[in-house]
Amino acid sequence: MMATIAELFPICRSITGEGLRRSLQILGGVVPLTTTEVPSGAAVFDWTVPREWNVREAWVKDPSGEVVIDFRRSNLHLLNYSAPFHGKVGLETLKRHLHTIPEQPALVPYRTSYYEERWGFCASQEVVSRLPPGEYEVHVDSSLEDGALTYAEHVVAGSTTDEVLLSCHCCHPSLCNDNLSGMALTATLARLVGHLRPRYTYRFLFAPGTIGSICWLARNETQAHRIKHGLVVACVGDAGPMTYKRSRRGDAEIDRAVAHILLHAGQRFSIRNFTPYGYDERQYCSPGFDLAVGSLTRTPHGEYPEYHTSGDDLSFVHRDSLIESLRRYLEVLEVLEGNGRYVNLSPRCEPHLGKRRLYGSLGGQSHAREAQLALLWVLNLSDGRHTLLDIAERAKLPFRSLRAAADALLASALLRSEPE
Amino acid sequence: MMATIAELFPICRSITGEGLRRSLQILGGVVPLTTTEVPSGAAVFDWTVPREWNVREAWVKDPSGEVVIDFRRSNLHLLNYSAPFHGKVGLETLKRHLHTIPEQPALVPYRTSYYEERWGFCASQEVVSRLPPGEYEVHVDSSLEDGALTYAEHVVAGSTTDEVLLSCHCCHPSLCNDNLSGMALTATLARLVGHLRPRYTYRFLFAPGTIGSICWLARNETQAHRIKHGLVVACVGDAGPMTYKRSRRGDAEIDRAVAHILLHAGQRFSIRNFTPYGYDERQYCSPGFDLAVGSLTRTPHGEYPEYHTSGDDLSFVHRDSLIESLRRYLEVLEVLEGNGRYVNLSPRCEPHLGKRRLYGSLGGQSHAREAQLALLWVLNLSDGRHTLLDIAERAKLPFRSLRAAADALLASALLRSEPE
Amino acid sequence: MMATIAELFPICRSITGEGLRRSLQILGGVVPLTTTEVPSGAAVFDWTVPREWNVREAWVKDPSGEVVIDFRRSNLHLLNYSAPFHGKVGLETLKRHLHTIPEQPALVPYRTSYYEERWGFCASQEVVSRLPPGEYEVHVDSSLEDGALTYAEHVVAGSTTDEVLLSCHCCHPSLCNDNLSGMALTATLARLVGHLRPRYTYRFLFAPGTIGSICWLARNETQAHRIKHGLVVACVGDAGPMTYKRSRRGDAEIDRAVAHILLHAGQRFSIRNFTPYGYDERQYCSPGFDLAVGSLTRTPHGEYPEYHTSGDDLSFVHRDSLIESLRRYLEVLEVLEGNGRYVNLSPRCEPHLGKRRLYGSLGGQSHAREAQLALLWVLNLSDGRHTLLDIAERAKLPFRSLRAAADALLASALLRSEPE
Repeated sequence: MMATIAELFPICRSITGEGLRRSLQILGGVVPLTTTEVPSGAAVFDWTVPREWNVREAWVKDPSGEVVIDFRRSNLHLLNYSAPFHGKVGLETLKRHLHTIPEQPALVPYRTSYYEERWGFCASQEVVSRLPPGEYEVHVDSSLEDGALTYAEHVVAGSTTDEVLLSCHCCHPSLCNDNLSGMALTATLARLVGHLRPRYTYRFLFAPGTIGSICWLARNETQAHRIKHGLVVACVGDAGPMTYKRSRRGDAEIDRAVAHILLHAGQRFSIRNFTPYGYDERQYCSPGFDLAVGSLTRTPHGEYPEYHTSGDDLSFVHRDSLIESLRRYLEVLEVLEGNGRYVNLSPRCEPHLGKRRLYGSLGGQSHAREAQLALLWVLNLSDGRHTLLDIAERAKLPFRSLRAAADALLASALLRSEPE
Repeated sequence: MMATIAELFPICRSITGEGLRRSLQILGGVVPLTTTEVPSGAAVFDWTVPREWNVREAWVKDPSGEVVIDFRRSNLHLLNYSAPFHGKVGLETLKRHLHTIPEQPALVPYRTSYYEERWGFCASQEVVSRLPPGEYEVHVDSSLEDGALTYAEHVVAGSTTDEVLLSCHCCHPSLCNDNLSGMALTATLARLVGHLRPRYTYRFLFAPGTIGSICWLARNETQAHRIKHGLVVACVGDAGPMTYKRSRRGDAEIDRAVAHILLHAGQRFSIRNFTPYGYDERQYCSPGFDLAVGSLTRTPHGEYPEYHTSGDDLSFVHRDSLIESLRRYLEVLEVLEGNGRYVNLSPRCEPHLGKRRLYGSLGGQSHAREAQLALLWVLNLSDGRHTLLDIAERAKLPFRSLRAAADALLASALLRSEPE
Repeated sequence: MMATIAELFPICRSITGEGLRRSLQILGGVVPLTTTEVPSGAAVFDWTVPREWNVREAWVKDPSGEVVIDFRRSNLHLLNYSAPFHGKVGLETLKRHLHTIPEQPALVPYRTSYYEERWGFCASQEVVSRLPPGEYEVHVDSSLEDGALTYAEHVVAGSTTDEVLLSCHCCHPSLCNDNLSGMALTATLARLVGHLRPRYTYRFLFAPGTIGSICWLARNETQAHRIKHGLVVACVGDAGPMTYKRSRRGDAEIDRAVAHILLHAGQRFSIRNFTPYGYDERQYCSPGFDLAVGSLTRTPHGEYPEYHTSGDDLSFVHRDSLIESLRRYLEVLEVLEGNGRYVNLSPRCEPHLGKRRLYGSLGGQSHAREAQLALLWVLNLSDGRHTLLDIAERAKLPFRSLRAAADALLASALLRSEPE
């Protein structure tokens, strides 16, 4: 994942354009991707796909002719979706087109202007403060032309057409945690799931933020209901604790599965209610879809000082954090895959576990072990109404123990699976 | 409100009588009132309207002939509803007819005997302790005769016949917080609401405690169901924090509206569950009516040392407290008036707010402002099921922001109102 | 109860056998019992009634011929259900058949091997550590032969066939708190309930743990649904606080009744959710029965160091603890017996309590007394939906006060009982 992130880092991405295409191509090296191009001008629900944006070069020269801001040094320097421009402007006029973060004077901010045409640059407050008065030459060799918006998918077919969606935004330029970390994790997860024979069909979606997920939903409007569970993958590489934002429904199976895994992971974590502000869960959870899609991140967007600045660079993302995030995602999928309802076939009193070698034969000891407890819980609550996740929550035992207990009881013909 | 209170203070009020009529006449100067007279002996549910009580004078003379307790000095001195009496009694006999508060020796208590005929006086422990032995002349020139019980109403017609009830008891004699404050606030609120064109019909009821609201309910039994929300107004002038007592239902719209307003008012407050002990909410919330009527006070009855004593005088009520209480009442009515269900007309993904100038056009900034969040929340939860108050509670935003957002979205044809 | 415990203490009990029969005979001296014998080999659900176990003598002699472990000194010394054996074995072989508690070196553990045939002894670690090498003579003169499992019942007929079950396990040998305390309390409770004319039919069941309650349920499968409420009685004599373990349902009337009583008892207590590990509630709460049976103990099994050791002797059980436990059980039964739904016959406004002498006639006092509050609560919530226990919970008043209020209101014809 670290290598993928490093390869993607220098590319200038936006919600359309060659940088986005090139990034999806690189991710296609991790796992095969099918790309879709939605032409500029296409109507997608209330929105219109914008013109495609590409940049060749962009710089500002000071009165002495020295290049003081240069897109080549960092693509953050150019206002994302900046209109083309060439001309000479005085310092005051220039400053109206410059974006800085006065409170973080050493950092370059990330700013966009997708839906209003203007030109602009981003720079550190330190650089801007030192600019002398005089006439500046401004050069933005960008193009805003009819083209297309690109998104890509990888699908792992399961034994049912019910889907699990893993969605990441891939429109941000040189920002590592937001969201090269999410892109790399999603691609890696796709490759790992591809080795399994899952129950669910898994859809991995790489799309530009907002307009990208809107395009996908518009193109897949009649099939979106197949998505039974989903997660928006972002900001999974920083050193902060895991944070889960619930789906709009709040108590969906995905919400409970993630909460269960975080609770038993033995690490600090936090869980938050849904709000309609954030990443693409905004679209998946719009009232016309109301899909059970939450978002599992580490430190959420906007809550670390490096967010949307040049501080979110390669040093901000950690290998161990990425691996731990990936593990949590896998554990969540394990719950979704293994969850089910069972019926105890010996429901009147406990069955005699000892004669089936499912239970220690020497009685009278003070403490039953977790595995024994798991057997008793599965038997006690398998009345066709409780799922294994229900049982895990009530028993305060890890899902995996209950899954193992259910498997042992199925093998002993003490349990049967309840069709959904 | 302070002037009204000062004018009402000296009058001897009770659950019937001329003092009550005179008080309603004074309130009629604030807002026009329609009075109803219910004759003595009338059956009202399980109760009978008592005889009318009036007092000309009442005093106690000590053995030396000096007046030591005098109704003219404070009408609290006479046991409310005291039977007439004239005669000479020894100190010990007299004391059996005297009520004091030994723990608050300087204060005169307020005591009543509506439904058992007896004579009596109230005095400070200090005065009573100094009474010398000997023969006392007692004079109670009161009358208990067939007459009527009086209550008064002001109604502001709304666009619907669904009603909001504001009810205050006006039977207490010279006690300011309990309940001249409630009477003055209710009259002022009635005048202010009269300037609006409200959705609800507002009924402002001024009636003696218990028997007065029972009379009103008995006379309006078939129409009481029109009352959709109500508040009993009392003890709104002291310096303590606002306190809300929920309706019997506990989760009625009025309960949630008041809780919301108190939560966002930025002042200390408390909220309590319904109990069948208190003011006239006891009658409105009796199981045969079960109206959604709570009670919004400052310090509740019985919880300040001056309660039902001569300490609850003009100095105990504060202009600033009254104004703040009035503001909270107005804010609660604003929620009731503005609450409604809406349907997002662009429910699949977010609508493009930017092109409608409903949203900042420069993206990438870390913090969305409250107004933007309000737009997103209203869009996200306007599925015809959630009211604006539901949304305000879930969004933890002030109702007013969501009301403004809904208005902007209605104006942009992104929302339609859901009929009730 | 202490005398019964002392008489029962020396007897060697197990899940079958003469010691169990003799113990039930002693309890039959407290309250008449009907015993049932279920023959060895009988199928009871998934289980088979084991052969009957009886012991004449059992000892271990050291190489010098001295008896170092002797069943006659304490029946804990013999592994419960030990197979017969006679022979000479070396120290190492002997040790494989000896059970100790190394962390509690002075105590003899209680161990069983009901369903796997083996021989063994239990001893203190101190004794075992001192055993010299050499040849030991082992003598277990026990028998495992076809016979029967014995359980006993006492039934107090009520005015309905709905049942309350009080069930205690009586299979443990010389262990006082677990469960001679439960056996003595259950028998005493049975005797006390026999003096009443209860609404419910009360069933007191004395049966060996697990297999005993399974036998009873198998023999009474079609009538078990009559049990509306139940408690498993165990560990009620130690000095620890009362502890209630909820039924599988979690919010059954018995769960709420016990919680209410413990809350108002003014003593430290704790309440726990159901788990499928414990005493016979495991069987009553198996999904095929799902009876509303909880367990009311003092310190729960496994949570005191003396549990299942020779430390649980006569000195571990206290008269005062037993009496307090008995009182709590009686109070719980009082709630079950007295609970019901009522309808206020004067539901529109409060009835006039004063004229019925149900209420103080002198008004204006600050604090209503608990009895008055109880009257108001019963009137306010008696709408045919709320039980007295519902009202007690909401009013935060003791059930007994509400029961008294309901009786007074019934006598005044202000209330009628709602049929179930």
